[in-house]
Amino acid sequence: MQPWIECVPNFSEGRRPEVVARIASVIEQAEDVALLGVESDPDHNRAVITIAGHPEPVLEAVWQACRVAVSLIDLRSHAGVHPRIGAVDVVPFVAGPGVTVAECIQLAERFGQRLWRELGIPVYLYGRAARRPDRRRLAAIRRGGFEALQTEISLPERAPDIGEARLHPTAGATAVGVRPPLVAFNVLLRTNDLELARRIARNVRETGGGLVNVQAMGFSLASRGMVQVSMNLLDPVRTPLYRVLELIRVEAARQGVAVAGTELIGLLPLRALLASAAHYLGLERLRPEDILEWNLVHQLGSESTELKWRWPDGTGNFGT
Amino acid sequence: MQPWIECVPNFSEGRRPEVVARIASVIEQAEDVALLGVESDPDHNRAVITIAGHPEPVLEAVWQACRVAVSLIDLRSHAGVHPRIGAVDVVPFVAGPGVTVAECIQLAERFGQRLWRELGIPVYLYGRAARRPDRRRLAAIRRGGFEALQTEISLPERAPDIGEARLHPTAGATAVGVRPPLVAFNVLLRTNDLELARRIARNVRETGGGLVNVQAMGFSLASRGMVQVSMNLLDPVRTPLYRVLELIRVEAARQGVAVAGTELIGLLPLRALLASAAHYLGLERLRPEDILEWNLVHQLGSESTELKWRWPDGTGNFGT
Repeated sequence: MQPWIECVPNFSEGRRPEVVARIASVIEQAEDVALLGVESDPDHNRAVITIAGHPEPVLEAVWQACRVAVSLIDLRSHAGVHPRIGAVDVVPFVAGPGVTVAECIQLAERFGQRLWRELGIPVYLYGRAARRPDRRRLAAIRRGGFEALQTEISLPERAPDIGEARLHPTAGATAVGVRPPLVAFNVLLRTNDLELARRIARNVRETGGGLVNVQAMGFSLASRGMVQVSMNLLDPVRTPLYRVLELIRVEAARQGVAVAGTELIGLLPLRALLASAAHYLGLERLRPEDILEWNLVHQLGSESTELKWRWPDGTGNFGT
Repeated sequence: MQPWIECVPNFSEGRRPEVVARIASVIEQAEDVALLGVESDPDHNRAVITIAGHPEPVLEAVWQACRVAVSLIDLRSHAGVHPRIGAVDVVPFVAGPGVTVAECIQLAERFGQRLWRELGIPVYLYGRAARRPDRRRLAAIRRGGFEALQTEISLPERAPDIGEARLHPTAGATAVGVRPPLVAFNVLLRTNDLELARRIARNVRETGGGLVNVQAMGFSLASRGMVQVSMNLLDPVRTPLYRVLELIRVEAARQGVAVAGTELIGLLPLRALLASAAHYLGLERLRPEDILEWNLVHQLGSESTELKWRWPDGTGNFGT
């Protein structure tokens, strides 16, 4: 089985679409990698690019994208509601089939070494790649953001894992790590009360007495006149989207505030979708094999890992 | 592009699992066809088998399965809540990619001819294969079931499309047709009031002043002590499951009755799943490309229709 990985770099740019497009085009033009998604938000002033492919091509493509990002993004003039420490803020690697977490950690360390060696960007290793327990979580690494790190990077507890204790003047620092696939899910609330969004975020996240596997923050979205509970769902199959959404709905209703909508950042794993859909549709359960197209990939074709695949046409109906 | 079709034969047996298993095993053992699902219900006394593959192998496999079914099922001793006219009650063909509806109709007619020629079973052509407007809908063809057809088959308006106007003594008649992919969806109501289920079925279906693209009947499920609104959703993307479910919930609540659960018979097309999931999750929309695995099939690999495919492991998490 050929190995493959996912990489989901986050860049501190969400207001200049042309910059985001240039970064993404590096991935598009790269051989042997798939650009799975590009999302950006002007309030967060952040872009998230989802990439998958075999390890070496992904590493190279993400490296080239980071070089472009560093040349175009100056953190000294960056304002946005999402905490960040770098122009390339986070580079998470996700182990796919055929790749162990240990191998993924090695990729992360190689990537981090290259960021320091070739661009002079200090690196913090997080998640499964963390060298210290207090580096597992991103929140600890980026506390106070780029601005606080200017002075605090020289403190022992904030020393980078790779490189010297000095920020790149315009690109700051970068967190590089390994994590399981997560779902980034935002819930929009029909209010401009930022304090409410922050309170709800605290109530629903694991560290606030809420749902396990949930990280959450409250944001104000000035461009939309509303607030947002922005979340990472670390296990969207065991702690599904519906459970989080309905809990937020309850918490917001207490203040007479309605959910205005939701959004996904990046991709949704099929089993995560099925877990929530089964709940809402009243089905005992939904498994991948209950979905027509899953069977067509899985069953038709030879027993080897090369399968002949035919997707239904764009209307969702077969034939003409 | 290689052509393929789906076939979803319905047999009048749901109480003897060994009989259903023997019919299904014919499909399992057939070359070049995929057995996608087997469902049966003792109250309906009916089994539904979902098959896909290239046209000729599917035709042959379904034929062999019907031969076995005819040898094992005697309609004279068949009792069940679902209306039926034959041991092999309905054989619907669904055109897949690379197959036109016209080609599918030819397959249906060939299959019908063979049922008459080799087994002496008269055939009604329905759906897109209907030769007369009043044969498009199954309800008209099977009105009064096997019992009524005994006498009425000699009436001009009930004459079969293929074969002479006489029923096979134990296998009755068979409806063979062509239709788009539909979703069979049942909603269980926490009551034993059959009249309520029938009334709700009437209210939500197209012919009763309800939702377009919905066929519905009310059934009593003695084995579960509850009633069921049993439906065919003819366009589960434009008229999604959630719209039907929520309307039933409203209609049932009027009598203080709750929805006890739901079930899918056969497979759910991905876009049908996405239409309902987006509604419940509050997402603006969900497209196939928002689902991680869809991208992996679609993007990784060569530009030809042969794609290298790697599924995530069974836990839904990548790597180890």
